[in-house]
Amino acid sequence: MSRWALGIDLGGTAIKAAIVDEKRGILADRRVPTDTASGPEGIVVQLAEIIHDLYLLASETMDPAKCAGIGLGAPGAVNAGTGTLSYPPNLPGWSVVPLRDNLEHYLRQHNELSIPVFIDNDANAAALGEALYGAGREFRDFLLVTLGTGVGGGIILGRKLYRGPSGTAGEVGFMIIDFEGSSIHSGIKGTLESLIGKKSIVELARRMIEASSSGSSVGRFCDNDYAKLSPRHLEHAAKEGDAVSLALWNRIGSMLGTGLANVVALMDIRKFVIGGGISGAGSLIFDPALDQLRLSTLPSMHDGLELVPALLGNKAGMYGAAALCFG
Amino acid sequence: MSRWALGIDLGGTAIKAAIVDEKRGILADRRVPTDTASGPEGIVVQLAEIIHDLYLLASETMDPAKCAGIGLGAPGAVNAGTGTLSYPPNLPGWSVVPLRDNLEHYLRQHNELSIPVFIDNDANAAALGEALYGAGREFRDFLLVTLGTGVGGGIILGRKLYRGPSGTAGEVGFMIIDFEGSSIHSGIKGTLESLIGKKSIVELARRMIEASSSGSSVGRFCDNDYAKLSPRHLEHAAKEGDAVSLALWNRIGSMLGTGLANVVALMDIRKFVIGGGISGAGSLIFDPALDQLRLSTLPSMHDGLELVPALLGNKAGMYGAAALCFG
Repeated sequence: MSRWALGIDLGGTAIKAAIVDEKRGILADRRVPTDTASGPEGIVVQLAEIIHDLYLLASETMDPAKCAGIGLGAPGAVNAGTGTLSYPPNLPGWSVVPLRDNLEHYLRQHNELSIPVFIDNDANAAALGEALYGAGREFRDFLLVTLGTGVGGGIILGRKLYRGPSGTAGEVGFMIIDFEGSSIHSGIKGTLESLIGKKSIVELARRMIEASSSGSSVGRFCDNDYAKLSPRHLEHAAKEGDAVSLALWNRIGSMLGTGLANVVALMDIRKFVIGGGISGAGSLIFDPALDQLRLSTLPSMHDGLELVPALLGNKAGMYGAAALCFG
Repeated sequence: MSRWALGIDLGGTAIKAAIVDEKRGILADRRVPTDTASGPEGIVVQLAEIIHDLYLLASETMDPAKCAGIGLGAPGAVNAGTGTLSYPPNLPGWSVVPLRDNLEHYLRQHNELSIPVFIDNDANAAALGEALYGAGREFRDFLLVTLGTGVGGGIILGRKLYRGPSGTAGEVGFMIIDFEGSSIHSGIKGTLESLIGKKSIVELARRMIEASSSGSSVGRFCDNDYAKLSPRHLEHAAKEGDAVSLALWNRIGSMLGTGLANVVALMDIRKFVIGGGISGAGSLIFDPALDQLRLSTLPSMHDGLELVPALLGNKAGMYGAAALCFG
């Protein structure tokens, strides 16, 4: 019988939790809205309820002795060593919270469950999820990039998470590719996130539409309400051949490729797994990214360059969280 | 008795070789001009002569059984696994040469020496040299950056060389920080080397001097012959308070700091050892680099940020090459 774990994706909107068998993957899962108003203590109670529920369900068919633990992927700065979560951006009012210890303690006290909890940030967990269950299975070394509201990343070296000396590695979105430019995010100029985060994509699109003499057909997709414009609209318009939208995705992909070139130069990582909502644009973004990646690296580093879509979608968090227990 | 090795720094101008005791460091060294005209075969003969000479000298006092090997740091793309050197920039006419095997073979055949040869690129060797004998001794993890004609690097993680999946890691000079800019090197736009390599520093200085309304005193240091202008002249002028030269070093340091910020974001490395001829400018370049490094990273990543000068100077290559044998 293989090992199993509970994998929990603690998001600002929802808590997603699953029973994950090391070999067979997700066997059952749950999703509840995150009770952000209840603060760190309330979240622990909420997590404990879901854990208790899933643990009972798992116990019906799985060997409790084979339970490798409870894995938790959380937004923001997580210290996997100390088990603390610091100022998670989507959980307002949290400061530095010893979430791992709090949860372990609560489970022992209130649920008579003595199970180790493993915690890491969501991008790291997602990278590990793709490594064990998704697009990264074939790669020993890769970078997972998540393209969404933010631009995040997780590094896998030798099939293991690379967390870095202080545990903050993989912040691809904070790499600077345009230090002379005007884009800015978290006070830092020219970062990848400042250029291709969701907001920046939409703003760039608005500027390109405005500057376009021949106009754009994207208006049809957002009811001509450019305040509502989203990457999805730009994706649809590009797929129908809208020149402005196509140019937009070319530019976004090209900037992504430039950022990845820095990863190739510095770390010699040549495999990239691209996930997150924006990656739904598919070849619209993958093709120019790979083209630019080749243009922006030495020919001696082109061998094996590959960009592939992440496979686990919104399950990556749960898979990755469970994978934290199998490491 | 501690182990010892021969450490050889194969440069385009000179071959520097030393007997290195693992504990006591360099015991004796030699320096001969590189006979670049003789090609790969000639270099092997030249290397074998120096090795034979130093080995005999070492044998007088050291235990041959304690010889860990012959380490060789070479310019350009070196594959440490296969022992090949590819198109070294400073050795014209070389293509892909199995230098390690050729040298081992020659030493067995002509010198009756059966000693393993270890080879890596000079920046990697220098990083390992600083790790074991220089400024990196106090750091578990750091990046060595060499500022000279080119901008190179070597990564130490957990006191070991990080070579990357294909052995090309650490190419700091090929990180892109200004993809919209006009600077270019090896066909890639906005790389760190295109911005702060020796040539670019001098070109930027010429432009700044020309654009300056109040003039610059750097002319005094280069006999008013701006074709001869070198970073050293700019260093002297800056130290005498020349405003243009000071502004130049501020800008160079700031660009270096921006590049290092990418290393912090991606790898969570926070210690930087800076070597190479240009690093002689000292605080002129270190101070603005550290300032910019702080401005270009999240406050949560400022803990432990440090820039220190390399300590081994032109001995780093020999130390590092020997260190390849002790790994």
